[in-house]
Amino acid sequence: MNDPTPIDFWFDFSSPYGYLMAEKIDTVAAQHGRKVRWHPILLGVIFQATGSRPPTDGDSAKARYVANDFHRSARFHGLPYNPPSRFPLPTQNAARAYYWLHGQDCALARRFALAVYRAFFVDDRDISSPDTVLDIAADLGIDRQQLATALQTPEVKARLKAEVDRALAAGVFGSPHVIVDGEHFFGADRLPQIERWLETGGF
Amino acid sequence: MNDPTPIDFWFDFSSPYGYLMAEKIDTVAAQHGRKVRWHPILLGVIFQATGSRPPTDGDSAKARYVANDFHRSARFHGLPYNPPSRFPLPTQNAARAYYWLHGQDCALARRFALAVYRAFFVDDRDISSPDTVLDIAADLGIDRQQLATALQTPEVKARLKAEVDRALAAGVFGSPHVIVDGEHFFGADRLPQIERWLETGGF
Repeated sequence: MNDPTPIDFWFDFSSPYGYLMAEKIDTVAAQHGRKVRWHPILLGVIFQATGSRPPTDGDSAKARYVANDFHRSARFHGLPYNPPSRFPLPTQNAARAYYWLHGQDCALARRFALAVYRAFFVDDRDISSPDTVLDIAADLGIDRQQLATALQTPEVKARLKAEVDRALAAGVFGSPHVIVDGEHFFGADRLPQIERWLETGGF
Repeated sequence: MNDPTPIDFWFDFSSPYGYLMAEKIDTVAAQHGRKVRWHPILLGVIFQATGSRPPTDGDSAKARYVANDFHRSARFHGLPYNPPSRFPLPTQNAARAYYWLHGQDCALARRFALAVYRAFFVDDRDISSPDTVLDIAADLGIDRQQLATALQTPEVKARLKAEVDRALAAGVFGSPHVIVDGEHFFGADRLPQIERWLETGGF
């Protein structure tokens, strides 16, 4: 028998709800015999292409709500969360590093992605900085110099661009955005619906 | 002992997620000895004041997602849902009728509000029309002529306006928007967090 189709998980490393989903989705998928393909993308490009705005824009009632909801949703899921000093921030270095690592060792790339999320949303590290990205990688035993070189190559830059284009073509408009057998789920709050979908094969 | 503080439930009769919350919130509240105060408001006014846009605007990937998510979220909650032919639509007649009824008999006003939601999201009736609003009321034994007269009074119009102003002052920016002891919850997907909040007194 063939393996069932993997779940696609699209996210930006600067997305708090993406962080919550990243901590949960592999376990939920595994409970139903599914694997997950992780795809870091750049939400700024997605928002520009789709005409959306981040919910945290400005000093509105909604922005204040969302800031509180990040905390509360993390507590709800039993996860640590400390609001980063600088937020949101550019994530192309982390995303490029992910794709390069994925070409070498996909399990290591997964551990790296989780480490980036925790560095940003728990330890308040500036994951936009190439040095921070290299430090996180080095802590996982990845060759710092080799990764530094890879981040500058046109191939790695083109890979991230291609993934963002794929996301747009697939109808991804935010983070986290999960696709299970063609069904789209947007937001960490759709986890219960994803679980039901996996249990029932669609409802 | 005094009764615990009631929960405030703000919604627009044209909001699909508001409909889902309306079908659930009283039961969830009652399980924790709480009552709910319902406040229909006009989302158009709220969006204009807060600079927000409805998620259903245009023919975007997000708009298509949301249209599907309305269906799926209703099925997830075991509720019927038929996309209305005309959507969204103005809801001031239904909201004004609610507030007038509430002054007479608050339990009847609650039944009326649920009947309006079901008329719109299950039976595809045009709840923007005063005649439809009067028909829904008459089916509940409400005096049609008396309500028709009430809908034209400055008092009833002012009451709805005052509720929308109160919503804005309270930080309401969408529908459904639930406030429990000062804590804000936006969206039908926050029901599990509302339940946890009521169980634990805050988490």
